[in-house]
Amino acid sequence: MATTEPATDETTVPDIGIDVPALTELLDGEYADVRQRVRKVLPEYASVLEDAETLPHGEFRERVLEVVRELADTGHVALGFPEEYGGGGDIGASIAAFETLAYGDLSVWVKVGVQFGLFGGAILQLGTERHHERYLEPLIKGELLGCFAMTETGHGSNVQALGTTATYVPETDEFEIHTPDEQSGKDYIGNAARHGQYAVVFAQLHVAGESHGVHALVVPIRDDAGEALPGVRIEDDGIKMGLNGVDNGRLWFDRVRVRRTALLNQFADVTEDGRYTSEIESDNKRFFTTLGTLVQGRVSVGAAGVSASKVALTIATEYALQRRQFEATTDDEEELLLDYGLHQRRLFPLLARTYALHFGQEVLTSRLHEVFSGLTSEESERRQLESRAAGTKALATWHATRTIQECREACGGAGYLSVNRFAALKADTDVFATFEGDNHVLLQLVAKALLSDYSSDFEDLDQVGMVRFVAGLAVDTVLEKTRVHQLLERIKDAFGDGDDWDQAAGLLDPEYHMAMFVFREEHLIGSAARRLKRGIDAGMNPGEVFSRVQPHVIAAARAHVERMVMEAFIEKTAALPEGDLKVGLNLLCDLHALSSIEADRAWFIEHGRLSSTRSKAITREVDDLCRRIRPHALDFVRAFDIPREMLRADALLREV
Amino acid sequence: MATTEPATDETTVPDIGIDVPALTELLDGEYADVRQRVRKVLPEYASVLEDAETLPHGEFRERVLEVVRELADTGHVALGFPEEYGGGGDIGASIAAFETLAYGDLSVWVKVGVQFGLFGGAILQLGTERHHERYLEPLIKGELLGCFAMTETGHGSNVQALGTTATYVPETDEFEIHTPDEQSGKDYIGNAARHGQYAVVFAQLHVAGESHGVHALVVPIRDDAGEALPGVRIEDDGIKMGLNGVDNGRLWFDRVRVRRTALLNQFADVTEDGRYTSEIESDNKRFFTTLGTLVQGRVSVGAAGVSASKVALTIATEYALQRRQFEATTDDEEELLLDYGLHQRRLFPLLARTYALHFGQEVLTSRLHEVFSGLTSEESERRQLESRAAGTKALATWHATRTIQECREACGGAGYLSVNRFAALKADTDVFATFEGDNHVLLQLVAKALLSDYSSDFEDLDQVGMVRFVAGLAVDTVLEKTRVHQLLERIKDAFGDGDDWDQAAGLLDPEYHMAMFVFREEHLIGSAARRLKRGIDAGMNPGEVFSRVQPHVIAAARAHVERMVMEAFIEKTAALPEGDLKVGLNLLCDLHALSSIEADRAWFIEHGRLSSTRSKAITREVDDLCRRIRPHALDFVRAFDIPREMLRADALLREV
Repeated sequence: MATTEPATDETTVPDIGIDVPALTELLDGEYADVRQRVRKVLPEYASVLEDAETLPHGEFRERVLEVVRELADTGHVALGFPEEYGGGGDIGASIAAFETLAYGDLSVWVKVGVQFGLFGGAILQLGTERHHERYLEPLIKGELLGCFAMTETGHGSNVQALGTTATYVPETDEFEIHTPDEQSGKDYIGNAARHGQYAVVFAQLHVAGESHGVHALVVPIRDDAGEALPGVRIEDDGIKMGLNGVDNGRLWFDRVRVRRTALLNQFADVTEDGRYTSEIESDNKRFFTTLGTLVQGRVSVGAAGVSASKVALTIATEYALQRRQFEATTDDEEELLLDYGLHQRRLFPLLARTYALHFGQEVLTSRLHEVFSGLTSEESERRQLESRAAGTKALATWHATRTIQECREACGGAGYLSVNRFAALKADTDVFATFEGDNHVLLQLVAKALLSDYSSDFEDLDQVGMVRFVAGLAVDTVLEKTRVHQLLERIKDAFGDGDDWDQAAGLLDPEYHMAMFVFREEHLIGSAARRLKRGIDAGMNPGEVFSRVQPHVIAAARAHVERMVMEAFIEKTAALPEGDLKVGLNLLCDLHALSSIEADRAWFIEHGRLSSTRSKAITREVDDLCRRIRPHALDFVRAFDIPREMLRADALLREV
Repeated sequence: MATTEPATDETTVPDIGIDVPALTELLDGEYADVRQRVRKVLPEYASVLEDAETLPHGEFRERVLEVVRELADTGHVALGFPEEYGGGGDIGASIAAFETLAYGDLSVWVKVGVQFGLFGGAILQLGTERHHERYLEPLIKGELLGCFAMTETGHGSNVQALGTTATYVPETDEFEIHTPDEQSGKDYIGNAARHGQYAVVFAQLHVAGESHGVHALVVPIRDDAGEALPGVRIEDDGIKMGLNGVDNGRLWFDRVRVRRTALLNQFADVTEDGRYTSEIESDNKRFFTTLGTLVQGRVSVGAAGVSASKVALTIATEYALQRRQFEATTDDEEELLLDYGLHQRRLFPLLARTYALHFGQEVLTSRLHEVFSGLTSEESERRQLESRAAGTKALATWHATRTIQECREACGGAGYLSVNRFAALKADTDVFATFEGDNHVLLQLVAKALLSDYSSDFEDLDQVGMVRFVAGLAVDTVLEKTRVHQLLERIKDAFGDGDDWDQAAGLLDPEYHMAMFVFREEHLIGSAARRLKRGIDAGMNPGEVFSRVQPHVIAAARAHVERMVMEAFIEKTAALPEGDLKVGLNLLCDLHALSSIEADRAWFIEHGRLSSTRSKAITREVDDLCRRIRPHALDFVRAFDIPREMLRADALLREV
């Protein structure tokens, strides 16, 4: 581990050339074929981007449905279903296809997600053969359209508290689906306002006077003429900030009867003689197992966040390589925006982070593939996957919001015209932070898993239960079980246990970067646990303790996901053969590491991991990395290989 | 100056009651009457908020025009014009009216701004009696509609480099207005696509073969039938991210002739015998004087940013006082969102900053009133006003973007439905960071003024000139002239010169808050100057030096504006009589100060102004302040007194 001197005023721009197709291939990874096939299909639907602005609301919804059905014909949107029903039998490929599809119009993307990911996914994962046989083939073909009716007006994040009921009626061997009050109406449900014929309805299951918690059932909601069935009330959610090609709506059920076999019975069933049975005894555990199977949605939303960021960065970078403003280095020509230090500072750390999140998503997708293809059957692997998916979704979607905003501003007034795509990108992705789990709530899930080291006992616990549980543990016991603790031990062997990391490690040493990320994570988990314990020991109400420690708990979760993303990027880069590509990717990897540390440098200083001198050196190094990335910026965005038609931006971009 | 102990776990919630009407009166200040009158008018146009979503593009533009004309009839939008032409003769009142109008639909607000602020303002400020007599009365009545044609496709921020020309033709005593190339077409011009009959066109003035820089002329662009006049080409900018009630468009001129008297001749004229005359000798200085008169636009946009933030915070706070999610402190009822520590942390620092910016705007408005009503005629006062307006606009509009985003996310899925106003708030305000001056460019203007202590010599300089100028100065000379340097001297007398402010001052001492803001500003200005100098001394190209030091220059400007805003808030609060209102406002003032220091604590630590221990104490104190503000949160937003109809949010809010 060599000690690197802080950057001097002389920036050494590495004399390398980036092989763009090779970098694209690296980014595309295992599923390069699928991605390339989707890239070829996308331009056929480029006109949807314009339709989103010009068609009236109702017509745009129909247009989007049409595109979804055409995509269904291509087979690219059903890769995750079993081949016997017309799917592709490859879950990883399915995520890669979704990720690439998100370069295009996001109403199309969400409607595909509702139909194939949520509705189809629920039938596949929560149902059994009787449901597969009946529904999968037509839904994969786009002939049978469905909704995923989980969220209620009164309950979004707290799914366990849903109000809708499904009561078994032994006399007729049916379930009665009922909405007890207005707040228990299903809300924001995609495909509900217009196109859905069936809905997978999540409801509190009551059998023989006993409640068994939330279960899912297939309920028909519309007849062939598109009218609501008797007992079903449907309301349109109306115009939204974005995604107006998706017909979100509300559903209320007034004692609607369905057959007993409508229950999606993968994890629980009601027998012919009206007995409730389940291999999972605890209601809580069954609930979390049920939700866990729906993890693909979160993985996809995170992936789409990264894709949308790539689109925004491509447009903003190309624009900054055409647009000149003010004379600076010469008297007779204005300066390119991208040659301004501030402009580099605004865009490049976001570019580096987009690469980092891309590789973070790649690892996540491969874990998802392993768990859902049965390549691993470890219970703790499944829980780690769920946690990783939740956390990555939060980081990737917030990143998209921030990146699209910065890129819009960096394109000035031109960025405000709808023709240049930012309007739709901003409006459509905004809800990513909310749907498939509110980002803050997701990070709380991550924290819960962390504090329990993914122990299954812990799944049962609500917030209050979590606080009590942690308070009952010795903090060192909590920590010792964590992977990050082991990582930290290794690091201490290398860098020492004291305050001298500044001396022990070079600024551009990836082991130093990891050490910083790992230290922060371990420390935040430990101190969150300690704070929870201290509150309880002081006799405070557990809810009040949770409220106070909540920002800290979230910070611990965030640090955990940041570390995993950093690790993915570093490992990917380290594994490359020596050469220009590796040198280039290392620039981005270093920039992501150091700009992340810089952003949180107050914390590192406060916790003895960074001196003020070193901290300032990091800021200089970030500046320097930006200057070194500048000559390759176009290559780095071109490597995303976004079809030109998808960039739109006609008014903004000429060929560079 | 007592030393305050860091907050303990026991939060003392002050036992106070906020008198909401009294707080409204305090916020409304000198122009309470005007504000109340506009509040009464607003609900009459509440339906525009819905029209923005439901009407087709073209119809919505007509609807907005109709409202603008009705508002013209009320007289509330022409308060800044002389009474003899039907105006109100009160510039301060005019800004207060605009600020309040921004609670409503922002297309209406921007179209009012284009007509009365930009077009009308240019006629008033840049024209002379001959223009006033002819145009002011009909434009104030909304009978004559106009554009402000400054920005070009190729030149937004760099107005001095505009391509459009106005060449004097002695033979006919006319000017020939010409667009030499596509990139010199006027772009993003409000009222251009549909309604404008006249345009104030900014063009390079050529007289007798000599160029005199950018001047403004009144040019008719449409006939009575609404058709473009011969030689004028008009194109629609099309659909935008937001503000779709404003008809932005492009204008090209093909050797269009106007009379000599079309020149707005406040600062320069062409005589009957074809000679160019101006009392301001330097082209640069004349240019900046011309632009300087248009400062009201920037003041208004900043004000609208604060108003939009108030709307967002009102909706999000009321929502968080209705919405419950997850059981926490009790087992039988879910917890209100606003009782979660994280939710308080998300909303309250933004609330406190909104108050701070409100009072910052109040001072700015009063300076504007003084300068434009001739109450002060100091040249340096005018330059300080311009700088303050530029900087406050940048901070207030970024704050709006951030606040609206956070509030939307804090309202979850409901926040995504257009009926709940966030969609329009987000989309409409997004361009605030760009129009009336890109925020980063505005902060550069602030920095330029700071580094020259508002010296008039400096107005002549472009970026490169600025770098050379600063490099030629002794840094101490630069600093000694600044007001912040004098402030710092005073502070050093009180707190000492050493590193022991942590000991010398209490966390909640406003003098400590000011000291921190002042120290940061002084230090950043000094080091920006030093870096510019060092670059030149090292023989670097001045443009390259500027590019490298640019983030630092911007940071200095930002610190300067932050200090002025903080100062305004502290002075306002200090001047209040003892009582509950003062205690309440002090909570917000302290929170704004400490959460700002917390956000930049890395810098303060790096520069020896904060120990790690003290820094952590500040974080605890911010948590504690949030808990103490919690019981009064509703009062603090209700005091904005936003008409309920303007909140829309039907689906979100019931009466609390």
